[in-house]
Amino acid sequence: MASASTRRRARAAKSALEAGTAAAFLRRRIPRYELLDEEALLALESHADWLLAEIGIEIREDPVALELFREAGVSVDGELLQFEPGQARALCASAPRSFTMHARNPAKHLEFGGDNLIFGPAYGSPFVTDLERGRRYATLEDFQNFVKLTYLCPWLHHQSGTICEPTDIAVNKRHLDMVYAHLRYSDQPFMGSVTAPERAQDSLALARIVFGDEFMREHLVIQGNINVNSPLVYDNTMTAALRSYAAANQGNVISPFILGGAMSPVTQAAAVAQAHAELMVGIALTQLVRPGAPVVYGSFLTTMDLRSGAPTFGTPESTLATFAFAQLARRMDLPFRCGGHLTSSKVADAQALQESNNAMYPAIMAGANFIFQAAGWLEGGLTIGYEKFVIDAEQCGALARLVKGLDVDAEQLAADAYREAGVGSNFLGVAHTMRHYRSANFEAGLSDSRSYEQWIEAGSLDMQQRAHARWHELLAAYEPPPIDTAIDEALLDYIARRKASMDDAWY
Amino acid sequence: MASASTRRRARAAKSALEAGTAAAFLRRRIPRYELLDEEALLALESHADWLLAEIGIEIREDPVALELFREAGVSVDGELLQFEPGQARALCASAPRSFTMHARNPAKHLEFGGDNLIFGPAYGSPFVTDLERGRRYATLEDFQNFVKLTYLCPWLHHQSGTICEPTDIAVNKRHLDMVYAHLRYSDQPFMGSVTAPERAQDSLALARIVFGDEFMREHLVIQGNINVNSPLVYDNTMTAALRSYAAANQGNVISPFILGGAMSPVTQAAAVAQAHAELMVGIALTQLVRPGAPVVYGSFLTTMDLRSGAPTFGTPESTLATFAFAQLARRMDLPFRCGGHLTSSKVADAQALQESNNAMYPAIMAGANFIFQAAGWLEGGLTIGYEKFVIDAEQCGALARLVKGLDVDAEQLAADAYREAGVGSNFLGVAHTMRHYRSANFEAGLSDSRSYEQWIEAGSLDMQQRAHARWHELLAAYEPPPIDTAIDEALLDYIARRKASMDDAWY
Repeated sequence: MASASTRRRARAAKSALEAGTAAAFLRRRIPRYELLDEEALLALESHADWLLAEIGIEIREDPVALELFREAGVSVDGELLQFEPGQARALCASAPRSFTMHARNPAKHLEFGGDNLIFGPAYGSPFVTDLERGRRYATLEDFQNFVKLTYLCPWLHHQSGTICEPTDIAVNKRHLDMVYAHLRYSDQPFMGSVTAPERAQDSLALARIVFGDEFMREHLVIQGNINVNSPLVYDNTMTAALRSYAAANQGNVISPFILGGAMSPVTQAAAVAQAHAELMVGIALTQLVRPGAPVVYGSFLTTMDLRSGAPTFGTPESTLATFAFAQLARRMDLPFRCGGHLTSSKVADAQALQESNNAMYPAIMAGANFIFQAAGWLEGGLTIGYEKFVIDAEQCGALARLVKGLDVDAEQLAADAYREAGVGSNFLGVAHTMRHYRSANFEAGLSDSRSYEQWIEAGSLDMQQRAHARWHELLAAYEPPPIDTAIDEALLDYIARRKASMDDAWY
Repeated sequence: MASASTRRRARAAKSALEAGTAAAFLRRRIPRYELLDEEALLALESHADWLLAEIGIEIREDPVALELFREAGVSVDGELLQFEPGQARALCASAPRSFTMHARNPAKHLEFGGDNLIFGPAYGSPFVTDLERGRRYATLEDFQNFVKLTYLCPWLHHQSGTICEPTDIAVNKRHLDMVYAHLRYSDQPFMGSVTAPERAQDSLALARIVFGDEFMREHLVIQGNINVNSPLVYDNTMTAALRSYAAANQGNVISPFILGGAMSPVTQAAAVAQAHAELMVGIALTQLVRPGAPVVYGSFLTTMDLRSGAPTFGTPESTLATFAFAQLARRMDLPFRCGGHLTSSKVADAQALQESNNAMYPAIMAGANFIFQAAGWLEGGLTIGYEKFVIDAEQCGALARLVKGLDVDAEQLAADAYREAGVGSNFLGVAHTMRHYRSANFEAGLSDSRSYEQWIEAGSLDMQQRAHARWHELLAAYEPPPIDTAIDEALLDYIARRKASMDDAWY
């Protein structure tokens, strides 16, 4: 049995290594779920307009952004912006409804918007955990490992960005190592740094070494992940990063991060309307910087335990909000980011998967275009888990099959199988089964569907333990994608010069 | 921290004990997901008609059923039935689109059909497992425990039937103890025995002691869970049980149990069309026995690992089939059963919840009316787990919140909260939050959303371990619902007489 298990894992690893042959992204062929009717959607949009008109929104310590809004006719009083109803939305009108993001490997370009669906791994964890070593601060080695694992997984299309924080590298220098890892150890699209304007500029500079200055003036190759300081505040760190990417005609993914009850009222309708208002202002800013700059309408709204203040994930309230956001994004005619395999669990246990799948499913049904945080997330995002990563990634594979939909045609209806098998006998050996058995079903390599006795004989491992073996096998099989030596040297040279120009800063 | 954890668990147990105050069933206020278009649905229906006309379906060793179909004008050749296109469906026309099921406690009656949603626990496991004692054959004590746990859970509305097999009781007598447990240790609706016609009659007789002969002639109080011997065969065990319940004007829940690739072709479209054909014949039989007899259109279609032959659950292929069935059931205008928290995992680990939630979510989105197998199922149904049971039951609570939908009205939009809090400050203390914080969010008692440090201090328990404590607490707090002593004695007397009339049989 151990050998069957080894064969199974080897198969799974091999299938993962065939990443190059998988689709660069998914195209959904199933309808979107529409939760709200027109009246409810209009009420949300109208409330967002009311917020921007009556309560207003602040952009703090960014006179450039304030001036852009003032020039566009928005009422600016100190740092407080107030919009006429419809004004914020009108300023978003030049944002493209869909766009292409280019990868170092041309076969891995991505299409944002429409019926397209893109998965990427977790973003932002200071901690990392695995079954053997437990929870610890993440390092650059961990970061590189997750870049490699993402590259190896055929169901992850985008590298996300700060998959985890390389805390062994100075805060003011780690972005250089992260962007290098994305460019060197993978060949997929990714997000650059947003923690300071000069780090955004470094991210752009490194991308230019690979893609060329001229190409990047007209083509999207890098994005910034912009959060809002909800409620109703943008701080200058985020607006400056946003402006950097937009000015370079590169991308922004804007997502208010809201824990309902703290950064918004506790009721979902309010939280959704508020985030929609915040989003329109951020999207408008990208368009004021550069009309046509590619931008994604993102949401990251979840609940909290209102007794303890702890964030909670995969809750029914956050599911409902996700459905509503998807409809609002579609009415803005913009690519939509939301969801992910989110959980507050500390380990890849029942809770982790219960919450993660609860958070992910509505994003899929709602028609999200871009789902990062799709692999590895634990502990409310504070930790990324190696085992959780491969478990989640495999679920992305199952979802990739799901969005292909159900074909109803003569071959699928299989009249010949019944003519061959007749009544009451099984279909295992009929020609129709032989034609389809290899491709009929998604094969979940980490799930154990064997008998209890076989499972006991193989060591009665739970999924987390099987996942532990899996990511080790994947990393052992990793080989970097090719890169032009001159380009690699130029990247390393840029990084060395930049690092030499600064003292380490750890804040 | 231990004391906070104890308080949390006590709260959860208390909330569960308030079952009497929870809704007897759910009424969904969210739209149904429609996967297939009219053309695809017509193709499935037309293929089902083709199967019944060209391939046919057998009813084995049940001359009474065959005669009923012959009298209705169906072509019967030996045991093979062949239907004109549309004929089977026409014979289903008298089945009610919705109906009430009565409970011993009148407050716990159920409405089947329409926008109603009913959850019940697992059905049929010979084995039981818990973290302390491991996997073992289930006993009557286990059966009684699960009846009590179901009674205690506010999110389970129906007792299902053979929650697990009491293997310590003779096969020909255990149905008496099971039906007694449903009637004595709970006051919710339940399913009776279907394993032999005389056991169905015993189930009906026990129900009559509680509900009265006259009442049961006009009111539904008990159902039979009827499976089809797919492909395209009904055996006489099932048809005889079906006829027993229908003749008494009681209910049937008919579900072809299909592992695609074995009991149907491997492609989902074929499996769905075949199950639809099988269902129409079973439903038609209920109506031939007694027009208007209440019946549920059920599906239990899943995939298998086509290399090993092992059943697999929560797969994307089975999700797609669930969506299709829901649409076909609605076009039949019948209550629809499907889904459940299904998995092939042996323990309540990441796999168990990943697969379970994958199997459950589409049933909810598709608009299922009756979902048993919603709590406890493990190992492809061979085992019911105590920990899995309470984990699943809590997810049913989250889904109960989900189907209530998202209200968008002035109170939910919370304009006053913004007037009070302004821009950039949190909403924790505003009056709107105070008004809503108790009821705003579903509280998941088994999920741990605390900080890593708090979690470590509390013993770093995973969800399975927390669930172990939970079901013990629930059982310790159990008190049986009241029953009239004379009725209880009459039930026990009937059971004693029936048991005395038979030797034990163990097959």
